[in-house]
Amino acid sequence: MKAETYLKNYIQKTSSIVKRLFEKKEREFGKVSSIGKEMMEIYFNFMGGKNIRGSLTKLGYEIFGGKNEKAILEASLMVEIAHAFLLMHDDIMDQDALRRSLPTVHIQYERIYRKIYKESNPEHFGLSMAIDLGDAGFALAYLLLGEADFSPEVKTRVLKRFSQQILTTAFGQALDVNYEQASKIGEADVMRIHHYKTANYTITGPLQYGALFAGAKEEEIKKIEKYGLQVGIAFQLRDDELGLYSDEKKLGKPIGSDIREGKITLLHLKALEFAKGTDKKVLQSAYGNKNLTLAQIKKVQEITIKTGALDYSQKLARRLVEKGKKFVPEITTDPELQDTLYKMADFMIERES
Amino acid sequence: MKAETYLKNYIQKTSSIVKRLFEKKEREFGKVSSIGKEMMEIYFNFMGGKNIRGSLTKLGYEIFGGKNEKAILEASLMVEIAHAFLLMHDDIMDQDALRRSLPTVHIQYERIYRKIYKESNPEHFGLSMAIDLGDAGFALAYLLLGEADFSPEVKTRVLKRFSQQILTTAFGQALDVNYEQASKIGEADVMRIHHYKTANYTITGPLQYGALFAGAKEEEIKKIEKYGLQVGIAFQLRDDELGLYSDEKKLGKPIGSDIREGKITLLHLKALEFAKGTDKKVLQSAYGNKNLTLAQIKKVQEITIKTGALDYSQKLARRLVEKGKKFVPEITTDPELQDTLYKMADFMIERES
Repeated sequence: MKAETYLKNYIQKTSSIVKRLFEKKEREFGKVSSIGKEMMEIYFNFMGGKNIRGSLTKLGYEIFGGKNEKAILEASLMVEIAHAFLLMHDDIMDQDALRRSLPTVHIQYERIYRKIYKESNPEHFGLSMAIDLGDAGFALAYLLLGEADFSPEVKTRVLKRFSQQILTTAFGQALDVNYEQASKIGEADVMRIHHYKTANYTITGPLQYGALFAGAKEEEIKKIEKYGLQVGIAFQLRDDELGLYSDEKKLGKPIGSDIREGKITLLHLKALEFAKGTDKKVLQSAYGNKNLTLAQIKKVQEITIKTGALDYSQKLARRLVEKGKKFVPEITTDPELQDTLYKMADFMIERES
Repeated sequence: MKAETYLKNYIQKTSSIVKRLFEKKEREFGKVSSIGKEMMEIYFNFMGGKNIRGSLTKLGYEIFGGKNEKAILEASLMVEIAHAFLLMHDDIMDQDALRRSLPTVHIQYERIYRKIYKESNPEHFGLSMAIDLGDAGFALAYLLLGEADFSPEVKTRVLKRFSQQILTTAFGQALDVNYEQASKIGEADVMRIHHYKTANYTITGPLQYGALFAGAKEEEIKKIEKYGLQVGIAFQLRDDELGLYSDEKKLGKPIGSDIREGKITLLHLKALEFAKGTDKKVLQSAYGNKNLTLAQIKKVQEITIKTGALDYSQKLARRLVEKGKKFVPEITTDPELQDTLYKMADFMIERES
């Protein structure tokens, strides 16, 4: 099946479940205070995106023979809800103001406070509420797991795998935060962040949770790792490309924020390595510049192409995808499911948002 | 048993388990990067405190007939690890610099960054790392639950109860953050925060997780709620008192930070209500004052006593504790365990830190 179709079907099938879940929580919390109701509304509105992780959880379930569609749709939402939590916290750390075409949660709360309370520090309140709402969302994800329509044995195995995975992702995020400031970062370091922060989290983990929900053994879920690692790193390379070359409308977040943040992407690293003279200086003064201009972004885009850095990244991403695909036959022998895994792999680097 | 003895025994018996756990994680993460090792070291050093929540988890287990001490000691640490995570995030929101006699985690990281990286914004990095390390700790708490030596059925029930509890606590925290800015807050609102943010989280929840680990039924754990609610609110009233009248050395955190933050405590509310003339003005200019002086703290301490606000809070706390104790016979008929629950209740308002 085409990856886009698979994702679209997943979103279609889960949208009413997500809505009902948050409506229930709004009622529960709304009974006590309008603040609780508002929290759940903001969380619900923040849900969205491509639903890659939820879809892959469902796909992993199907690959390992799972047949209870209702149960897996409900359970897989834990992954999307947890993803929203991580984005909320990530947006604080990256000081991003836009996400999924909406103000990020800390900015939304900053605005709410600015309106209600005249004095004091709206930025700090925005940040506090976004930390807190993220924590609430993380707990909600686990609550969904607890309530999922699977056996306690299965849920306990997912509990372990999922927690280990988030722990690793937080560790990857720490590398990311630290490396932004470090002076000697090489391609291997960037790959290490992508491995820990993205690949396991976005591809391997979700497929594995799905597999575990279907009752797969530990040896079986191991087989997903090689596919997930290659395809997952490729996913991140494409993400960094889109972050530099897409447009805000398509992407739902501003272009060039990686430049402003001084994020060490492969594009950044390679452009710096390949650039000479003035170009190198332009890159150095743009990356990490909090007052980045549009003209500077354009310049960085040009230099990244001109030096061959974009080409380098794209070719690597393609190689990784092709390498990842080689492991598909180890995961499943079903031709249709194999086909979906191939197309998912391609999608990760062909997607426009 | 005396509450202090129960807590001391718990700390003694768990300290080596905590140490081993974090050493293992340091090794795991240290293999990939020194940053991961450092994260686990900082987390380990941040562990500590009175261990009320872990101890109550063990006590709940014993009350409901649990016999596997090793298993409950290991499993109960999830509560203390999660508590450390919430404190990390709480300290960011409250902008506190000291906790458990150590710099708070965001301040520790701020200093690390100041040392390593010359330019850029150390405050933001400190904050980012404290958010991230908290998230890691939350995942680690759940991982411990997944790995605990109990049946999957039991673990799934704890998973649900615990997640629901953290969700409620996050909601209580949101009330707290919001009410700091609100103009019309009454005693009922303060009690509501204490209920959602503290009582369930500190007393009811831990006793219930323990009970669930011992295989208690949902109806049985219900019986803990009345005790937990009264005693838990009393705990918070004492906490607020200590925060105003203890000393930094005993408390491990600065005195008067509730004043500086403008936190709506019962002491704050009642002192304002009872005070007249200049006293009222002194209170109004002290609460929420980021540049609070020692002389102002002293003045607030005096006025809170003089107006009878302290007495009001202390008497209420005592009444709540006595009310809570009345529910002990519903929880257990064992005289020794009843005795420990009585003494735990007293401890919550008699403790000096």
